[in-house]
This record gives sequence, structure tokens and C-alpha cells, in this order.
Amino acid sequence: MDGQDLKGSTVLSIKRLSRYLTHLRFLRKTGTKEGFSASQLGRDLCIHETQVRKDLALTGLEGRPKTGHSIEEAIEAIEKYFNIGDTSEAFLVGVGHLGTAILGYHSRKNSHPSGIKIVAAFDNDDSKIGKTIHGIKVLAIDKITDLSNRMHISIGIICTPPEAAQGIADMLVEGGVKAIWNFSPVGLTLPESIVLENSDIEQGAAFLKRRLTEQKRGKK
Amino acid sequence: MDGQDLKGSTVLSIKRLSRYLTHLRFLRKTGTKEGFSASQLGRDLCIHETQVRKDLALTGLEGRPKTGHSIEEAIEAIEKYFNIGDTSEAFLVGVGHLGTAILGYHSRKNSHPSGIKIVAAFDNDDSKIGKTIHGIKVLAIDKITDLSNRMHISIGIICTPPEAAQGIADMLVEGGVKAIWNFSPVGLTLPESIVLENSDIEQGAAFLKRRLTEQKRGKK
Repeated sequence: MDGQDLKGSTVLSIKRLSRYLTHLRFLRKTGTKEGFSASQLGRDLCIHETQVRKDLALTGLEGRPKTGHSIEEAIEAIEKYFNIGDTSEAFLVGVGHLGTAILGYHSRKNSHPSGIKIVAAFDNDDSKIGKTIHGIKVLAIDKITDLSNRMHISIGIICTPPEAAQGIADMLVEGGVKAIWNFSPVGLTLPESIVLENSDIEQGAAFLKRRLTEQKRGKK
Repeated sequence: MDGQDLKGSTVLSIKRLSRYLTHLRFLRKTGTKEGFSASQLGRDLCIHETQVRKDLALTGLEGRPKTGHSIEEAIEAIEKYFNIGDTSEAFLVGVGHLGTAILGYHSRKNSHPSGIKIVAAFDNDDSKIGKTIHGIKVLAIDKITDLSNRMHISIGIICTPPEAAQGIADMLVEGGVKAIWNFSPVGLTLPESIVLENSDIEQGAAFLKRRLTEQKRGKK
């Protein structure tokens, strides 16, 4: 199943909740001690406070008109909503610049801020195989299926060129992964039961160009 | 304005149209000569054909139940919808792995598949300043505002750590950009008139974790 099986409103809520989480962690990191209100969070992220309240309600966080929330309890509620505490192990395939960037974020020894832990990386480039990047060993592609089965990997992250993506996806599915996170700008055909998330970075460019155009035409 | 000012349905249509474009270009690249039908495209991308037709209709492409479309005319229609032909010049700030990956995609001499052309990159790391990456010169951050004004840059792409993002955004806005494409996982405060697109890669992880959880619970 792909994002499009979720209602547009749900997709936007999840998008926003992810941004709230990032922002609240940023506040915590920068030492903000006091609590926050939905209206503050809305101001920070340019989102209407009513929307913020609705989104936070999805996580079971109860509104507190007067006192507001503590940053910690809000972070916990959103992390629980995304089931981040229950870390999923992942393989990453394609260690180019994008793959390396994602590897850097999800390979950290102790913290897995998205609940995804990359435990091995794969590439078909002999100059990369055997290297260790961000503490993760780069292995040959032909090891994907067997290792994935033996290690019970649940997520496959694909950062390969489009031509290679479907073949890699098939290896990962054969290896028993439950979800594919696809950064390769191409459509993948997968069994119904596999969760598919497409993160084609270029979609952001499409939004930008479209909205710049609408703005030129004076529309919203 | 940020993505959330668009209706959820519009957001999903733009997301899908961007995927259609990528997929159709992939078909063209791999030498597919014949035309395609909405149902075929739907099958390739696991999207219901009715939805595909609705989306394509937004671009003004007329449905052809019997004959289908030529790949070329569909690519043209979607490119026109995203105004890709009218290339926008951009600055990219923060040349880490992610910045370098994006640079590689948008700096190509001749083709600018998203209608965005990065003409200069910026970093505060002396070891990077002066270097040329993917044919683009890396300059010092303090040059952003002046250069952006002089070159009439329309898009600023931010790939910096979260702590730096707002300051860079302010320099870019002072430099007269019309849009900010923010890859830094933090909320930005910008004037109403500026188009803001947040492409926090970790949002994909949030979707994945949430949907894996729903699947465990046997919900959709």
C-alpha cells in the first residue's frame, strides 16, 4: 500500500505531527524548559492553532487551554503515535550521497529518532563494498535477501538509480521486509501486504514550481 | 505560505502528478515508444485509474478512452502544469551529503528536470569554500544576500543543520528570493509572501512507522 491509500487529511496530519516532533525536540535541545501551547507551536510553524490542537488530539494528548503542555509529554505522545520506541531494523541499498546522508541519520549507535535503525548497507560498487560508512558496513548486493531473512529485517531503504530500484525491491521483499522506503524516483510494483513509502525528493521541487506559478498568476 | 495552505486532495494530486512525470520520463528513457492509458499508468504506480484520470485532467490533458495518450504529450502537459520550462535559478546552502546529492541533481548543465537550476552553493566550512562540486562553486555564507540580490535568484534551498536554518532563510529573503525549499528539519518563520516548501526527509520515516504500526494492529 502506498501513501495514496491514506486520506489527504490524514497524510497532512501525519506530516504536521512529524514537524511538531522535530520542532519540539529542537526546542528541548536548545534548552527550552517551560511548556508550550498549541497557539505557540502554531505560530512557530505557521500552522493555525485549531489545526495544531486537532493533530495533537490524534496522539491522545489532551488539550490544556490554560496551562499548556510540557514539551516532554508532547514529544512522548507523538513518539508513541509513530511507535518510535519500538525500533525497526533496516537495510539501506545504494550508498551514494543521498544514501550516505540517510545512513548518517539512522545509523547512530544510541539514538534512533525515527525508530528506524540501519544495520547494514549495500552497493554494487566494488570501491564501496567492504568500507564502513557512519559505522555501517557496506556489503555486496547479492547478500541482501539471505541476510535480510536471517536478521528478520523489517524495512528496506532504496537509494539506488531508478533502473535498479525494482530489482532491489524484489530482493528485499524476498528477504521478508514488511516495508520499503523508496527514494528512487520510480514506481515500484510490490505485493499488497508491503508498506510502500515513496520519498522522491523531487516532489518538493514540483510543489515549489507549481506554487510559484500560482503566485505569479495571483492565485493561491 | 506552506504546503498546509493547500487542500489535502490538491497536495496528493501534485504528489501523484510528480510521480507520473518521473515514471513517464523513465519509460521514455528506457525506450518505450508506444502510448499509454490511464489504467496502465495506474497499474505501474498502484494508483486507481479513476484517480489517474482526475489528476491528468488537472493538467488539461484530455482523456482518450480508446487510443490513450502518447508519452511525449503527457510529459509535456505535466511539465507545463509545473511550469518546468520556465527555469528558476536557485542558491543551495549547506553542502553536506544531502546538499551534495541535491546539487548533483539540479546543477546539470543542460537538463533541469524540475525547472530549478542551482547556480551557486554556500557553506561556512573553510575546507569546502572555493571548491567546485558538480560544477558549482561553493562560496562563503556572507555572500548570500548580496549575490542573490544582484543575480535575482528566485529560490533558496536550505540543507544546513537546524540551528543555522532560520538565519540562512533570513539572508535569502533579504536577498529577494521568492521561495524557500527547506530540507532542514525545523520550522521557519518567513514573510507571508514567500513560498515555503518543507522537505524533511524524516517525514517519510514517520509515515512508514505509523503505517507499519497500523498494519500490526490490522487497520489500514
